[in-house]
Amino acid sequence: MWSVKDVYYVSDSTAILAEGMGRALLCQFPEINFNEERIPFVRDAADARKALARILKQSGGRSPLVFCTIVQTEPRLILDSPEIEFFDLLGPVLERLEHCLEAKALREPGFSHQADRLTLARRVDAIHYSIEHDDGTRTREYDKAEIILAGVSRSGKTPVCVYLATQMGYKAANFPLTAEYLDQYQLPQELLKQKQMLVGLTSSPQVLHEFREKRYGGSRYARLDTCTQELEQAQRIFDRYKIPVIATNGRSIEEIAVAAIEALKGARPRGHRG
Amino acid sequence: MWSVKDVYYVSDSTAILAEGMGRALLCQFPEINFNEERIPFVRDAADARKALARILKQSGGRSPLVFCTIVQTEPRLILDSPEIEFFDLLGPVLERLEHCLEAKALREPGFSHQADRLTLARRVDAIHYSIEHDDGTRTREYDKAEIILAGVSRSGKTPVCVYLATQMGYKAANFPLTAEYLDQYQLPQELLKQKQMLVGLTSSPQVLHEFREKRYGGSRYARLDTCTQELEQAQRIFDRYKIPVIATNGRSIEEIAVAAIEALKGARPRGHRG
Repeated sequence: MWSVKDVYYVSDSTAILAEGMGRALLCQFPEINFNEERIPFVRDAADARKALARILKQSGGRSPLVFCTIVQTEPRLILDSPEIEFFDLLGPVLERLEHCLEAKALREPGFSHQADRLTLARRVDAIHYSIEHDDGTRTREYDKAEIILAGVSRSGKTPVCVYLATQMGYKAANFPLTAEYLDQYQLPQELLKQKQMLVGLTSSPQVLHEFREKRYGGSRYARLDTCTQELEQAQRIFDRYKIPVIATNGRSIEEIAVAAIEALKGARPRGHRG
Repeated sequence: MWSVKDVYYVSDSTAILAEGMGRALLCQFPEINFNEERIPFVRDAADARKALARILKQSGGRSPLVFCTIVQTEPRLILDSPEIEFFDLLGPVLERLEHCLEAKALREPGFSHQADRLTLARRVDAIHYSIEHDDGTRTREYDKAEIILAGVSRSGKTPVCVYLATQMGYKAANFPLTAEYLDQYQLPQELLKQKQMLVGLTSSPQVLHEFREKRYGGSRYARLDTCTQELEQAQRIFDRYKIPVIATNGRSIEEIAVAAIEALKGARPRGHRG
């Protein structure tokens, strides 16, 4: 077994996809240390030669792994050197797709990231909406929200909302369950009007305690028994109003975001965002 | 050529990666309409049977495309039905990697998205930092920033910062070049102290004009000549202080984010974030 491997993510665009694929694969080998580098914007033969020279200089003789998502044939052939372990992630699939779809692929570099104006405008709007509706602000505009996350302080609402907006284009608001709601086991009217958009976030008392200690160590707010009590009160509110709930502990931001959208899909009729 | 195809993204985790791969491939066939659906969290044989039944019911007989990133063998074999076009995106690469690395893959479902606590905490901190340092606020804390974007109003600073934080874990601040700086061709001291973290964003007058019209139609602020003048003034500031500049028009949020990081890497000595 190799103990260390150099890994390169090479792409005609951002190399974010190549990195995502590489990481999903390499995490299945937790005993090996990987030195990773992204080489984005490799658009032609000259770029490919430069990238190859860089890779060979840095990792020559140690068979680096190269994960490549370039769609054009020529730069790919240049990079596919005998001195590296070359993984062509898109090429073979693209060929099979041409056969399945009975169509010819464009093979235009960076095409997938060319900004479709509508999609871009939608994501930009969603990001601004989510920042402007963070932490219970502007609740009167909740009728524009496509998802609203509720939960106690530090249960992870803000990062998940920001992810939903940035990556998935949803207008995501979030509402903190503070003492005035927890103690009364009720939600405000502005929120109840949009109940079909509402998803609750919960966590374990221990994880919440750790998050809060980091910011306000030693406070009553951060104490384990306070966390336990608030999470129980929040759960009673979610039960009372039949709000779907996602447990966040041990899960990534992506997983919580996708689980929240799935929960909404299950709770309401299927729309165009299905 | 097919004019319409059903496409499913099936995964043991969020299916975000399968969707990303699928879209990078399918965008090379712009004349075909694709009906897409994500089927996340397919973790065992029972989940796989349920997913297959759903796919066959909805698209039976029309050979739907299924892009799959499941690492376990059994659910994959269940999904690989003769009635669908099954694309196993990770399986074959994982086998070749086992050979290259002389190691056995874990093949644990959802492993890549299991929240590594350090990475998660880092991203959560970065997101909070970026929201709290949006639009020129708390400039005294710029010493904590890992990247600072500067540009005129509506040049795309906020969405790119949020992306850098959410997806890439960078503490990203942004600073608006308002009239007081543009007219004097200078930047404030707090910003100049962190000049090595600074990247400028620019756009075309036409695109900026359109963005501004959408929000404040008919205003002096949105006028094309105002946009032209402000972008020219901003460019003079970037030139004066030798700040790397990224053109944002026609590019996606991802592309601008990666280009900004590359620009910083080029401008300063290589650090651990390289």
